[in-house]
Amino acid sequence: MNFISKVGEAVDLNNSLLCVGLDPLLEKMPSHLGVGQEAIFEFCKAIVDATHDLVCGFKPQIAYFSGQNADEALQKIITYIQENYPKIPVLLDSKRGDIGATAEQYAKEAFERYAADAVTLNPYMGYDAARPFLEYSDKGCIFLCRTSNSGAADFQDLICEEKPLYQQVATTISKDWNKNNNCCLVVGATAPGQLAEVRKLVGDMLVLVPGVGAQGGDVKATLDAGLTSAGKGLMINASRSIIYAGSGEDFSTAARHAALALRDEINRYR
Amino acid sequence: MNFISKVGEAVDLNNSLLCVGLDPLLEKMPSHLGVGQEAIFEFCKAIVDATHDLVCGFKPQIAYFSGQNADEALQKIITYIQENYPKIPVLLDSKRGDIGATAEQYAKEAFERYAADAVTLNPYMGYDAARPFLEYSDKGCIFLCRTSNSGAADFQDLICEEKPLYQQVATTISKDWNKNNNCCLVVGATAPGQLAEVRKLVGDMLVLVPGVGAQGGDVKATLDAGLTSAGKGLMINASRSIIYAGSGEDFSTAARHAALALRDEINRYR
Repeated sequence: MNFISKVGEAVDLNNSLLCVGLDPLLEKMPSHLGVGQEAIFEFCKAIVDATHDLVCGFKPQIAYFSGQNADEALQKIITYIQENYPKIPVLLDSKRGDIGATAEQYAKEAFERYAADAVTLNPYMGYDAARPFLEYSDKGCIFLCRTSNSGAADFQDLICEEKPLYQQVATTISKDWNKNNNCCLVVGATAPGQLAEVRKLVGDMLVLVPGVGAQGGDVKATLDAGLTSAGKGLMINASRSIIYAGSGEDFSTAARHAALALRDEINRYR
Repeated sequence: MNFISKVGEAVDLNNSLLCVGLDPLLEKMPSHLGVGQEAIFEFCKAIVDATHDLVCGFKPQIAYFSGQNADEALQKIITYIQENYPKIPVLLDSKRGDIGATAEQYAKEAFERYAADAVTLNPYMGYDAARPFLEYSDKGCIFLCRTSNSGAADFQDLICEEKPLYQQVATTISKDWNKNNNCCLVVGATAPGQLAEVRKLVGDMLVLVPGVGAQGGDVKATLDAGLTSAGKGLMINASRSIIYAGSGEDFSTAARHAALALRDEINRYR
């Protein structure tokens, strides 16, 4: 089954558009877990166990693992999800992008070493940098389009040949790069106006939306702007607001409550 | 000493603008080295030992290590360079870019875990994504500007508010992001016209130039377009054309010959 179908089934299974981001930072994790790779894995495992029936995906952010020398914990949590909750897709958030020969290695990193169902990618280098990923036709290729951070406006909103750059990116990807029907886009919840423009350009293409929760994006505005006519087409990601909802020994219960509240808030506006 | 100064001293020490890229691929390495992390390290070590007096930098490409599950080999080769050839800067080619909290982790990956002198970065997400790297004022932040691959034209050459996007990127970085004087740019040797435009926009800023060698960029055209008035300002990278110059047991000798020839060709046009 390809990534897009797997997400669709997970959305129906858990009645959820919520994706939970796994951004484990030792200094923010409950202290009783200790330190090191094992603590990072146990933290993520507890979050996964507490929220797996509330989500349509998990999104581990590779930077938190590689920055803390915890590659094995990343491997272990992805394997854990796939063995225990095989219907929930894993999106590796790594925002890679490089020339073809190098991109082949990054594709191996995402799809073979870590066996993720999808990967986030940076479109700046163009089509040949994307192709090695696109050729894994059952995997999802989720390209940055209009990101959720304040600096997104620096380049992504520049008017390029009569349209903002992010719209050029959306159009090029949906028209030219999506031959295997495995492309998705990232549009931040902090930019509902841009999300609405993207939705007009890309039909029913799946859009990953970070930026609700800690970054302050509005859930209703996001859904109004980005839902398809079928009430789908979005994966709404929250990381810090869920995984750090509690800081004590009951952190996973707090995470479940936060995930449940956000899933239900999202569903109210679908 | 900051990165820019370290490169300047290495340029003078070895009378060289050549940077050798370390892109070790097991299937292309001499078979007598065997397989696994140790073989990858030994391959890189032999290249480094054979070329250290001919270069102004080494540029390991992290994708080749992470794609082949060889993070330790990357760590070891960087440590080896720094212990044995401490005057030669190490540029970690990873083209990272993400929102601030995540970028902090990528900066730790590059500058603490791997202790590189510089890192390549993708500018698409804008200033706040760059800031955690820029704050390491003694480290180099090398931003993609106009890359060497064919797909570079897809977005980087779009006319954005009267200038191509890559020129917007060059101007923004040189005017607004370079407060710590630690920014550099990537411009491919396959685009000497664009390199000349960038040089006009950014003064003496250091430019890393991939794309000679295997990618077909012209050395003389690159130097004519990109040198500063002092005959510097460029690091010209070659990877595959040097490290795979030979395929037998004498591969490091072949690599030395290829590096010497390219260094001298570069110097003829300085």
